[in-house]
Amino acid sequence: VNPDVDARTHPYIATALATSKFGIPAARARAAYRLIAALPGLRAQGLACHIGSQISQVRPFVEAARKLRALFLALREDGHALTRLDLGGGLGVPYRDADEPATPAAYGRALAGALRGLDVQLLFEPGRLIVANAGLLLSRVILTKQGEGARRFAVIDAGMNDLLRPALYQAEHAVEPVVEAAGRKRRIDVVGPVCESADVFTKQRMMTALAAGDLVAIRSAGAYGMSMASSYNARPRPAEVLVDGARARLVRERETLEALLDGETI
Amino acid sequence: VNPDVDARTHPYIATALATSKFGIPAARARAAYRLIAALPGLRAQGLACHIGSQISQVRPFVEAARKLRALFLALREDGHALTRLDLGGGLGVPYRDADEPATPAAYGRALAGALRGLDVQLLFEPGRLIVANAGLLLSRVILTKQGEGARRFAVIDAGMNDLLRPALYQAEHAVEPVVEAAGRKRRIDVVGPVCESADVFTKQRMMTALAAGDLVAIRSAGAYGMSMASSYNARPRPAEVLVDGARARLVRERETLEALLDGETI
Repeated sequence: VNPDVDARTHPYIATALATSKFGIPAARARAAYRLIAALPGLRAQGLACHIGSQISQVRPFVEAARKLRALFLALREDGHALTRLDLGGGLGVPYRDADEPATPAAYGRALAGALRGLDVQLLFEPGRLIVANAGLLLSRVILTKQGEGARRFAVIDAGMNDLLRPALYQAEHAVEPVVEAAGRKRRIDVVGPVCESADVFTKQRMMTALAAGDLVAIRSAGAYGMSMASSYNARPRPAEVLVDGARARLVRERETLEALLDGETI
Repeated sequence: VNPDVDARTHPYIATALATSKFGIPAARARAAYRLIAALPGLRAQGLACHIGSQISQVRPFVEAARKLRALFLALREDGHALTRLDLGGGLGVPYRDADEPATPAAYGRALAGALRGLDVQLLFEPGRLIVANAGLLLSRVILTKQGEGARRFAVIDAGMNDLLRPALYQAEHAVEPVVEAAGRKRRIDVVGPVCESADVFTKQRMMTALAAGDLVAIRSAGAYGMSMASSYNARPRPAEVLVDGARARLVRERETLEALLDGETI
């Protein structure tokens, strides 16, 4: 159900707008459940909504939960034996140090208040919140260069094909040297080697000097990272390593150049 | 070399800006060639530029060619035996019927004028112009639905993972039914099945009605189509078919779900 809540989010990750392809408008929900009840092969089990992604405040979720609660009760009054309410995902992930989205605890408290007394099984979809900051993209500086004026670039061996979010959503991922050099910080553009202006991870970030061979970590790459990776520019996709305390284990092999041609015939 | 030409193009495909990661500023070129001449393992062969992509007029190319010509002659006067001048790519592809970029013939005439008398081998990189309109993405309508008000959607089985350009560059690709239905045209949003608001191929396009099972062609998908495709949303990448007159031949097999897990271990 599309509860039409003002989600204050990037247009690409706002899902509950009147112009969106998703869901069924709330005003048509009761008719849809009547249709389900009339069909022999279907049985309605619950009600689900998704109001958008990367929402930093609890207010839109509470507003959605109240609307869902009212609709859920109306559907039960209509005779539908609904047992589940899926409130979707969307709670924001802190991608930068300055980000302070509502905490899962505050989110939980607010929703518990809005849904108090409702006899229902609640479902949530917090995948991004769980995995985004559990992963990072490790990359090595290929070269540094100076552009026009004093503009400094560090070209790394990861590109937009490996992590699309900065190019696709103008997402800002923290980029940090794995071992911080001594010396004062300067503004650096950290860019990939792909032949596109969009292949930029961070612009004018204050960092200590980077040199060829240095490792950098691109943070918060656990969600929408490898799952959106491509082999654009004939770049095989990176390996994936699972780190568990002091142990590290390869869980996906680095893609090979040969694999890019798999299934091709002339 | 970055000739710093006003390319009037999408920021992501403008390459010759002062803030860009690409190239060497023209003002530093002579020093760079002196360095090359002083190094034992290198010999400068030529000069190359790339001013951007999807440029619809010849004027920026002529301006770049004039700057390159002057720099090329200055480098020869400095004693560098240059034999090649690479003018890059960038001539716009007509993606929509209304697009009327300069023709290759007009581009050629203008550059021939700007470079007349220069004794040099010219190189060009017109890949996109050659292949973009040579390919299309064929897709089938999964379902149609009505959103808020009278907004009509056709959900097709191709998504942003198959053709990223609309989501990444706000690119407009013509979308057409393979067999046009009778009846009047209405505004339709043609969207993919991926769980993102960006997964939209065209909004409010005037088309005759689409029905589940209909085939649609997304035009101009020959460049930056399959090369940027990913398996996002666990969607195997499509097959590629080469059409030569009345003959058609599979040249790349449809990716399998199993292949998405290749190289993964637990």
